[in-house]
Formats: sequence, C-alpha cells, structure tokens
Amino acid sequence: MKILIDVMGSDLGPAELLRGVVSAASHYDAELCAVGQSEELNRIAKEQSIDLSGISLLDAPDVITMEDKPMSVIREKNHSSMANGLRALSHGEADAFVSAGNTGALITGGTMIVRRIRGVMRAAIGTLFPFSAPVLLLDSGANLDVTPAHLEQFAFIGSLYMKQMFGIESPRVGLLNNGTEETKGNQLQIDTYQLLKSMDGINFVGNVEAKAIPFGVCDVVVTDGFTGNLFLKTVEGMAKYMSHNLKEIFETNLLTKFSGLLIRDRFASFKEAFSATKHGGSPILGLRAPVVKAHGSSNARAIESAVGQAIRFAEGNFNEQIEAFFAERPAEEQQNEN
Amino acid sequence: MKILIDVMGSDLGPAELLRGVVSAASHYDAELCAVGQSEELNRIAKEQSIDLSGISLLDAPDVITMEDKPMSVIREKNHSSMANGLRALSHGEADAFVSAGNTGALITGGTMIVRRIRGVMRAAIGTLFPFSAPVLLLDSGANLDVTPAHLEQFAFIGSLYMKQMFGIESPRVGLLNNGTEETKGNQLQIDTYQLLKSMDGINFVGNVEAKAIPFGVCDVVVTDGFTGNLFLKTVEGMAKYMSHNLKEIFETNLLTKFSGLLIRDRFASFKEAFSATKHGGSPILGLRAPVVKAHGSSNARAIESAVGQAIRFAEGNFNEQIEAFFAERPAEEQQNEN
Repeated sequence: MKILIDVMGSDLGPAELLRGVVSAASHYDAELCAVGQSEELNRIAKEQSIDLSGISLLDAPDVITMEDKPMSVIREKNHSSMANGLRALSHGEADAFVSAGNTGALITGGTMIVRRIRGVMRAAIGTLFPFSAPVLLLDSGANLDVTPAHLEQFAFIGSLYMKQMFGIESPRVGLLNNGTEETKGNQLQIDTYQLLKSMDGINFVGNVEAKAIPFGVCDVVVTDGFTGNLFLKTVEGMAKYMSHNLKEIFETNLLTKFSGLLIRDRFASFKEAFSATKHGGSPILGLRAPVVKAHGSSNARAIESAVGQAIRFAEGNFNEQIEAFFAERPAEEQQNEN
Repeated sequence: MKILIDVMGSDLGPAELLRGVVSAASHYDAELCAVGQSEELNRIAKEQSIDLSGISLLDAPDVITMEDKPMSVIREKNHSSMANGLRALSHGEADAFVSAGNTGALITGGTMIVRRIRGVMRAAIGTLFPFSAPVLLLDSGANLDVTPAHLEQFAFIGSLYMKQMFGIESPRVGLLNNGTEETKGNQLQIDTYQLLKSMDGINFVGNVEAKAIPFGVCDVVVTDGFTGNLFLKTVEGMAKYMSHNLKEIFETNLLTKFSGLLIRDRFASFKEAFSATKHGGSPILGLRAPVVKAHGSSNARAIESAVGQAIRFAEGNFNEQIEAFFAERPAEEQQNEN
C-alpha cells in the first residue's frame, strides 16, 4: 500500500504537512510519499528538524494556490504537486492520493487525470460528520446543479463507502429535504424521491430534515452540492458559535471558571470533533482511484487522519463494485455525460 | 392597539395558548382578543382556572389542523379561527394577528384574505435568530422557488423590518451563498448578486456564508425558501444536538455533575435561546397588515413573546413605507405576479 500526500498549497504550509506525513508513517503500515518541491522540502525538513527517513519524495516544480482556477491543474500548472500526484495515482504508481490544496482544482484534476469510474456521471465530495454515529453527506459542494440521476448514483456510491469504511451492512440513505413527506421540496427532490424509492441496491429511508441528521436518522445523506455545502457550513458555524458562547459562560466569575476547569478536557474533545482541522479527509467519490481531500487548514493531526482514511478507502474493492453496479444500469442513464 | 391571537390548531392546545394570552395581557398595554371556539374556550378557562377577564373572544366554529391543506383556510374551513382572525384583521378590526397553527394555511390565508401590499410579489416568512446580535432570515420556507426580483424585494422588506424592530439605521443585507465571491452559487445567486449590488435603499454587503452568519456578518439574510428552511433547521438541530451532548458531559461523574450545577442557570438560558418555543414569532412579511407566525409547539411564554413582537410590528408605518418604495419601481417588475 502506497499513499501519495500533496504537501504544497495548503493554508498552514509544507512544514506542518510534512509533520503530518511523518506522524502518519509511525501510525500506519503503508509507504508514504510526499509530493512537492523536493529541494525545498528537504531544506524545510532540515531547518525544522523533521525526520523524513522512511518517507519518499515525488518532485513537482509547481504549486497550485488557493487562488488558482480549477482548470490550472491540467493547463499552466500541470507540473504542480497536485497534478503530478494525480498523474502518478492514475498510472498505478500509488494506491491513493491525499491533498489539502485547492478543492476546485482537486475535483477537476481528479475528473480529468484520474477520471471517473465507467458509468459514473459526476464525482462528488463526501463529508463525514462526527455525530453520535458517523453520517456521510454527498455532494458537499462539487456539483451545484444536479439531476435526479446524479443523486441516484450518489446514493449508491455513498452506501458503498459507508459499508466499506464502517462495516454498516445496509446503510440507510436519506434525501435532504424541507420535510419528510413524499411531496416535499422542489422538482429535484420530488423526482429524486421517486427514483430512490424504486431503486435496488440501496436502503432508502425517505426524506430527511436537516434538524434530524445529527440524531442518526440515516447513514448517508444525498443532496445537490449547493444545499450540501450550506448544511456543512451551518454545522461548522453553529459548532463554533456554541463553543464560543460556552467559553464565555465559563468565564463569567470565579465559580463558573472553576466549573469550566472541571470539565475542560471533555469539553475540548467535544469542540474538536467539529473543528475543521480534526475532520480528517473528505473522499472524492466516483473516481477510478481513491482521492481524499483534507481541509485547507489541516494541521499535522488532520493529515495523519486523512492518510488513515485514504488507506481504508484503498483497501477494499470499492471501485470495482461501483463499476459492476453501473454496468448493469440502462445505457441511456450512463450516457448522460460520459 | 388590538391584537388577535388564534388559540386553536397548535401542538399544545388552547389551554396553553390562553395562558400565553393572559400572560401577555399583564405585560403589554394592548387589547388582546383570543380567536377560537368561544364556548369551548370559556369551558377550558373555567376548568383550568385561567382568568380571562380583560381578554375578549372572537368566535370561530372551525379549527384548521396541522394536517389540513393550505387552501382549506379559504375553502372548507373559511370559518376557522385562522380564517376569522385574518378576516377581522383585513377589515381593520385589529392591528395584528398571531397564530401558532398550520404555517402553509397561514401563508395562504394571509395572501388571500389580508392580501399582499401593492407591488409585493410574494409574502415571505422571516425568522429572527438570537445570535450575538439578532439576524433576520427571509424567506424561511414560504417560497421554495424564487426569482432574483423576489429576493430583491425580500432584501428591502427585511431591512425595513430590522430598522423598525431594532432601530438599526442601515441594516446590512447579505445573500446566502456557498462562498463570498461575486461569481459563487447557482444562476439564482449570481443574478441576484448583480441586482442587489446596484439596488438603492438597502445596504448590500455581498454574499454571506452560512458559517459566518452566527458571528454577525449581516443583519438580514435573503435566500430562497428551500435554502432558508434548511439553514433554519440545521441551526435548530445543531443547538439541540450540542445541548444534548453537553448534558452528557456534565453527567459523566460526581465532579462534572457538580460543575454542571454551578453553571446550570446560565447554560439553561443559552439552550433556551435556540429552542423553538422561545423563538417568539416569525413575521409574515409583505402583507397589508402584520401577521406573526408562532412556532407550532409554542408554550405560553412563546405566545407572550410573539404578541410582543406583533405589537412592535404594528407600531410603525412599515407597510406604508414598503408600498411607497415599490410604487416607485418600474411597473414591469411589479406586474410579474400581481
């Protein structure tokens, strides 16, 4: 098992990401390879006493920044760490690729370089929420405009992912909507409901409301990328807002400060569960090889967690199952965009 | 000032709502009138020792339930408490109407009986969020499908509401989107951005992301009803989920229990801020007279708060200002749906 990690183009810079790779190497039994400007990486490692023994490097002269356009990954920056890493992955030189860089470029690069699994119309970003039980949301922002046929594919792919990652035998799939009744929502939701209801190979539990998702009504939530992104960001914002407010409550007076000290550790782990840097990675689903997007502001621990996720992602025969499933679907559905 | 309160058709039943009306009467200097089955209301008041002296009753033989279709308010149930109350309001017999009943029926009844202000294309549900500073979101679910011209109107109406209710001189209006850049979002957001940018009479601050809203990036958030409803329900769900988790943290052992006792009161008030029953009312904006929707599961205190909101809503010359503003807009915009 070999995992490529793009250590360039993230918010915290290569040193922090290299530390994450080193930490992951001590935790997981996999060959890890950092992709970036080799000379610069060696210099940084020396300067900051990061021991890269056991870590291989894949050189890439260029860097995609957060400001670059998505298409830059296959045009002017096709020798960036992201492009070189994806190319190595697509050539079978590694089993998975992790990047904390520009999301749009990673989706574009994944789709153009690694390419979609045959029959898959759109690659989607999955987000794992650390609620009481893990919940996978897809799409989280790769596809703002989708059709019911896209959502049908997301439902199947998401189910398979949750089965593989968490051993859930028959993951419950919910359609994010503004009410649970069959007739709720816009035309997209109404039409998708009918498709999912009659679909084999998934366990559709109907429409789910946003307020019920944290309480475990389903394992997989499917929705368009605009709505999914909104849900994701509202969850992030509320977790941050409520943590901030609690901190203020604890700082009211001496008694509350004492009270805060008593539960400080438990409170911290609760806060961290929803902080972006601890989320680990978001899988890009529907590509021919595993690509994991780590948050742009990932710290070393987040990278370590994303590498772990990439390893589990790459262990199964996830993509073969998807290909087999879609190969059996009517041709007209598959031809939409392939 | 006279306020009508529909005490039928809510989740907790007429007794709880009557208690809310009695409580409001002792807090506010306004004439309060409960709308419902008079005989039944008098019986309940007697049975449960609710002192209705000073409260007038407006009789209505029928009740709209949560299961009734929206159109029932003007068809088979046009003598329901909701229909009779709205009719009295539209005849100028009162200054505002509050209901904790069926939301769809209230929007339909408001639009068909009270009617929209001249020039207003759609009535919208506003939701006030009790973040550090209050934030008004509209639409929260009345209009799933909207055009940029609708959102432009919501922006103006929402600004006026926040100015009147909270004295904010120039409320900052944000467009809910999946990023802050001008080009983000679907066609609806892209087109709306351009309209709002060049609009006089509002203080447009650009696109706002869901995660930033709790931290005060704007006073008014405009969006379509599907997205608005999703935001609202995600906020509700996360507040409930995090409160639930904190409670568990406090119950871990004797020390944490003690710690919980120390901050119990402050924690409770924080929790309540986001519980639906304490939200108070959501204004239905764009109608010729003030209508306030209280949450379906409103308790007495929530009703008291909704009555207070209705009084403040009715105090200004809100609707005259809206009419004047839209009268000056090009006719083709106004004719869309009127």
